[in-house]
Amino acid sequence: MYIESPRYTERFGSVRMNHPQAVVALDSGMKSELPPYGAMGVMKVDEETIKHFENKMAIVIPIKDEKLKLFEGVISGVPHDCMIITVSNSQIEKIDRFRMEGDALNQICRYTSREALIIHQKDPAISEALAEAGYEDLLGEDGLVRDGKCAAMMIGMLMAKVAGKEYVGFVDADNYFPGAILEYVRNYAAGFSMAKSDYSMVRILWRYKPKLSAGLYFKKWGRVSEVTNKYMNSLISSKIGFETEVVRTGNAGEHAISMKLAETLPYAAGYAVEPQELISIFENFGGILPTRDRKAMEQGVDIFQIETRNPHLHEEKGDEHLKGMLLSALSTIYHSPLCDQDLKQAILSELTSQSIIKEGEEPPPLHITPAPKKMDIKKFVAAIKEDFNSYSALQ
Amino acid sequence: MYIESPRYTERFGSVRMNHPQAVVALDSGMKSELPPYGAMGVMKVDEETIKHFENKMAIVIPIKDEKLKLFEGVISGVPHDCMIITVSNSQIEKIDRFRMEGDALNQICRYTSREALIIHQKDPAISEALAEAGYEDLLGEDGLVRDGKCAAMMIGMLMAKVAGKEYVGFVDADNYFPGAILEYVRNYAAGFSMAKSDYSMVRILWRYKPKLSAGLYFKKWGRVSEVTNKYMNSLISSKIGFETEVVRTGNAGEHAISMKLAETLPYAAGYAVEPQELISIFENFGGILPTRDRKAMEQGVDIFQIETRNPHLHEEKGDEHLKGMLLSALSTIYHSPLCDQDLKQAILSELTSQSIIKEGEEPPPLHITPAPKKMDIKKFVAAIKEDFNSYSALQ
Repeated sequence: MYIESPRYTERFGSVRMNHPQAVVALDSGMKSELPPYGAMGVMKVDEETIKHFENKMAIVIPIKDEKLKLFEGVISGVPHDCMIITVSNSQIEKIDRFRMEGDALNQICRYTSREALIIHQKDPAISEALAEAGYEDLLGEDGLVRDGKCAAMMIGMLMAKVAGKEYVGFVDADNYFPGAILEYVRNYAAGFSMAKSDYSMVRILWRYKPKLSAGLYFKKWGRVSEVTNKYMNSLISSKIGFETEVVRTGNAGEHAISMKLAETLPYAAGYAVEPQELISIFENFGGILPTRDRKAMEQGVDIFQIETRNPHLHEEKGDEHLKGMLLSALSTIYHSPLCDQDLKQAILSELTSQSIIKEGEEPPPLHITPAPKKMDIKKFVAAIKEDFNSYSALQ
Repeated sequence: MYIESPRYTERFGSVRMNHPQAVVALDSGMKSELPPYGAMGVMKVDEETIKHFENKMAIVIPIKDEKLKLFEGVISGVPHDCMIITVSNSQIEKIDRFRMEGDALNQICRYTSREALIIHQKDPAISEALAEAGYEDLLGEDGLVRDGKCAAMMIGMLMAKVAGKEYVGFVDADNYFPGAILEYVRNYAAGFSMAKSDYSMVRILWRYKPKLSAGLYFKKWGRVSEVTNKYMNSLISSKIGFETEVVRTGNAGEHAISMKLAETLPYAAGYAVEPQELISIFENFGGILPTRDRKAMEQGVDIFQIETRNPHLHEEKGDEHLKGMLLSALSTIYHSPLCDQDLKQAILSELTSQSIIKEGEEPPPLHITPAPKKMDIKKFVAAIKEDFNSYSALQ
């Protein structure tokens, strides 16, 4: 593939946050040498490099009662060398949708001879292993893993760790275009190939997010993203003293993290999970608050924002969640120790003017799960190992 | 990629028409060997094989006043090793859209260091070269190349021949998903890799063609395609004496042809171009009518129909053209010397019941351009050579 070279990097303590880089062409062929156009701002990421990183990457697909046809399409788009880890919270009773998902995954993996796992979020073997490893933070009152996409992502991340993967990427199960999934994962690989540090993150910026109402309108910006990005940029600007517009992926659902970085981050529940990742990186490695991650501070943290060549077309889930998304995203900023009074005031004004909170209210505190590094991963591996094979899609 | 093995091949004289083969996964990675699942009906087409054929292929993009954003997306999806040949019939006066297309193509090709040509359908240099080569059949009354997608396709095919390409594929300029274009071309390559003969064709069958009205409805069948395929199958059934449903891509706009086969076929104008290709193959190589192509008869003609993994989402052009499409498609069958009285009667009933023709009328005769092999290609090459470089997008 061909992708824009990083044009400019904002530095914030040890964080190197790169301005968005657009994918210029999906394929870069075999016959061409590296073109002499590097200076012109576009670089080639060759097939071998992409495959090198795909081989070290697990792709986590959180799923909950999604249409099977969409799930099948998503699987068929994930590059073959990536391990697929499906974490399902779908219903088991009445209609066993979890089994259907397993059957669908199994069928495709059998025909294409590939690695995949599927686990149910409520599987007691998982919660028991977590308890043994001292990581009850992921468990609910019933002793099982909590509901929600954040918990599913974390389970996926831990399974990737168990499988020895160095990178973990996330894709949603409701994407209409297998070809877009293929591109997301290749973009993750391209991003990691540019990283100088073992602590890195790749976030996907959609070129367009078409709206289906009234034909097809190629919307550039989600309403929520625009506001989230604005306040994240204000947060950075207030600390570095220069205004910046570097953050364009505050809400990016499609993203990937190096395992080393993933282990150091706390994770917020609900819609706050993706914005909180950025905020946590700023807090931990921004050089303003104390950090315990000496190694990461030394190497730095590389963040890439890659603008896709494909538009993003997924199931329309209605608009009622948008306010919740915005509230969650702005809460991550509001409750950060990095957030000063002026910015807090601006966030409160934004939320009240949008009638999301009332005058005098504050965004509710976030439920945050501490970083996975606190757990005893060896105990987790030992506990889960017996069951690990049973999660294979190929049984 | 992983694709279903050819399940069953209908033989009709020297024609080997394969039942549709679905793409199972878009990528097949680097680390896996060929899996032992060939017997299970799925085969791996590896990256090197795909690139081998892409390198020998030109992709022709006929364009007429299409949205530039869509055209740019299409270019960015065509695999790098394929030569892009854009044949434009866009307006030049007032707003010079042809120049804009050239600029867009030039920009992407410069950044990605790739081969591309762009020609205007009405360029006098083309019509003069055709006249010198004794192929006035493509010219209109004004002495320039005729309007229409068929003429654009043929000009593209001839330029591919001049460039020494062995395969020529077609994609429309109005596709919303660069990732779908990437898949189409990879499917062409996969198809050609399965061919035993130098005379081969790959036709794309869309998995779904979503309708945008009322949200997104994943329609499996176009209304026109369904009827076209039915009567094409009747034509074959009446000759081989066994009923068949093998034809599923009678109207396939996305298709590719080996140059050797392309040169032997006549081409119908308008919407009839794609169905006529199949009819001409049946006429020339079906073993019923006499043929002059001894070599092709000996090697046989391989036709593959590949069902995409991506849905097909393109600009909605309204429904008024559907009747015209159906009339054109059924005309190709009706006017074929292979079509017997019973089938002619059935086609007349279909067209009158759909109010496309009136009782007692016949489908109008088709305008057919004779096979390119009649022209003196050496003279064409000599005449076009002077101007050839000026068509390069990289000037």
